[in-house]
Amino acid sequence: MAILIRAIALLLLFPFAAMAQDLPSWNEGTSKQAIVDFVKKVTDQSNADFVKQEDRIAVFDNDGTLWSEQPFYFQLGFILDRVKALAPQHPEWAEKEPFKSVLAGDLKGMAKGGEKGIVELGMATHAGMTTDEFTKIVIDWYASSKHPKTGKPYNEMTFLPMRELLDYLRANGFKTYIVSGGGIEFMRPITEKAYGIPPEQVIGSTIATEYALDGDVPVLNRLPKIDFIDDGAGKPVGINKFIGRRPIFVAGNSDGDYEMLRWVTGGPQKGFGLIVHHTDAEREYAYDRKSDFGRLDKALTEAESRNWLLVDMKQDWKKIYAFD
Amino acid sequence: MAILIRAIALLLLFPFAAMAQDLPSWNEGTSKQAIVDFVKKVTDQSNADFVKQEDRIAVFDNDGTLWSEQPFYFQLGFILDRVKALAPQHPEWAEKEPFKSVLAGDLKGMAKGGEKGIVELGMATHAGMTTDEFTKIVIDWYASSKHPKTGKPYNEMTFLPMRELLDYLRANGFKTYIVSGGGIEFMRPITEKAYGIPPEQVIGSTIATEYALDGDVPVLNRLPKIDFIDDGAGKPVGINKFIGRRPIFVAGNSDGDYEMLRWVTGGPQKGFGLIVHHTDAEREYAYDRKSDFGRLDKALTEAESRNWLLVDMKQDWKKIYAFD
Repeated sequence: MAILIRAIALLLLFPFAAMAQDLPSWNEGTSKQAIVDFVKKVTDQSNADFVKQEDRIAVFDNDGTLWSEQPFYFQLGFILDRVKALAPQHPEWAEKEPFKSVLAGDLKGMAKGGEKGIVELGMATHAGMTTDEFTKIVIDWYASSKHPKTGKPYNEMTFLPMRELLDYLRANGFKTYIVSGGGIEFMRPITEKAYGIPPEQVIGSTIATEYALDGDVPVLNRLPKIDFIDDGAGKPVGINKFIGRRPIFVAGNSDGDYEMLRWVTGGPQKGFGLIVHHTDAEREYAYDRKSDFGRLDKALTEAESRNWLLVDMKQDWKKIYAFD
Repeated sequence: MAILIRAIALLLLFPFAAMAQDLPSWNEGTSKQAIVDFVKKVTDQSNADFVKQEDRIAVFDNDGTLWSEQPFYFQLGFILDRVKALAPQHPEWAEKEPFKSVLAGDLKGMAKGGEKGIVELGMATHAGMTTDEFTKIVIDWYASSKHPKTGKPYNEMTFLPMRELLDYLRANGFKTYIVSGGGIEFMRPITEKAYGIPPEQVIGSTIATEYALDGDVPVLNRLPKIDFIDDGAGKPVGINKFIGRRPIFVAGNSDGDYEMLRWVTGGPQKGFGLIVHHTDAEREYAYDRKSDFGRLDKALTEAESRNWLLVDMKQDWKKIYAFD
């Protein structure tokens, strides 16, 4: 009886830890060990580096860190599909760049429009509807679209070892956030199911919205105006704005995560920094310093001196996707 | 033994509900009953209006809803004190409005500068330091400042019945947020202790911040530029940006909460709307349609037709402050 009560008391204290599996898709080795050592350290009350549960905040980039980002960011796939779907209502696009190139399936032609062209495509496909309408469009797109290489729905192109890492951190009292350059309302409809991360723990780029009445019904209209770019030096800004605490764990994969890596690992708490290095051309993609999407150059150069863990996908992961 | 296990199973299912006191500082009556009826309804799985726990989001205005806002918003008290503290470094303020009036203790003179003057005072006292430095300034101010009427620290001027309401909602699986026109980094240092609300559940007005390196140490500098005003029609925008779900419970006290009240109660889920009506000149303050701070006019007019609960502080609350 005393043992039962003790066991239940432990369960009440550590309701999740008792159920957690520890990173089964990670090969044994220095990467997995470094993660486990850090988590043990900050959750051990007798350790000098112990961190109270409410301060155990972990932030994850999304594209290339939690799911693939090749042959292009998945949100670009959404944009291309939406331009095609909306084209009948926009006959003028047949002669207007960058729409013309998109409709012709000419991505190189589209790229000639540079950032201005991408923003134009983004606004044409992401604004001009209410937030509720946009969410429905996004959900329908995830349900119908397929990744060009694997033929799987984009929201299944998530990295199983990273999903396990999220679970492992949460089992140890961490609160997990996405901090992505991607659109906040493009991610939120799927993050709970894909990663166990609720909408309020997703930080991303935003376009301006405006409160309005549709008859007597309040709505939020999405305007063709960028509100916030959550990339590069914007990531620490977004973290501070949304969370108001400095995380102690950060995972990224590109130079867009460089400042976030510095912010988390360079603070008084000496957080843990992790970089997913895409080294597996066979099971996923291999790229770093020269890639158009997810370029990893400066952060790769500084990883060792800054004590950031370089996760080698080919060496460190038993599986890439759950469907492998 | 079977009973013990059953009792513990219940504890695991409802760890907080079993411990909660139900609104002890609220008088029995229609206001308390309306709140309890709503909470019972959305937490009862057999009820048609049952709401899953993750969708039980409650949002609270701060000034005038969770703590007092008279004789002026407490953040204005902070501004006035900071202008005085910084004056020795700014000899030019002696001849420059609105600083001159503030230094002379002439609030009417200060008010002549209008919104532009207030913004100028705000920027002079809220920008030009790192986020960490500002947090320290705020904490020190709360520790040393006193409310002009009660002589109590400002962060103790919270309404006990509202604190109980927050506890009661959380005990029933709600996630509670502050959605205030006040500065986000002016509130966050005290909301956990004052209301049991962690920094990441505080939404407020923000000024722009910028990532920079101080030597090799990453910092966020606060810039003299408004980023977002979380008031009026900005409140639904802020809720959608930070939370990404529509709340089902909202509490406010002024026309600055009008659009938020509409947004929460006018959605498909028919959320609960509550207005704190300041009717107690003796124990707190009595004001509504004509007040400079926390004016309640349009929302008061429409409260009945929109089915918003008007909480009458004098009638409905046994105590106002915990120190009463």
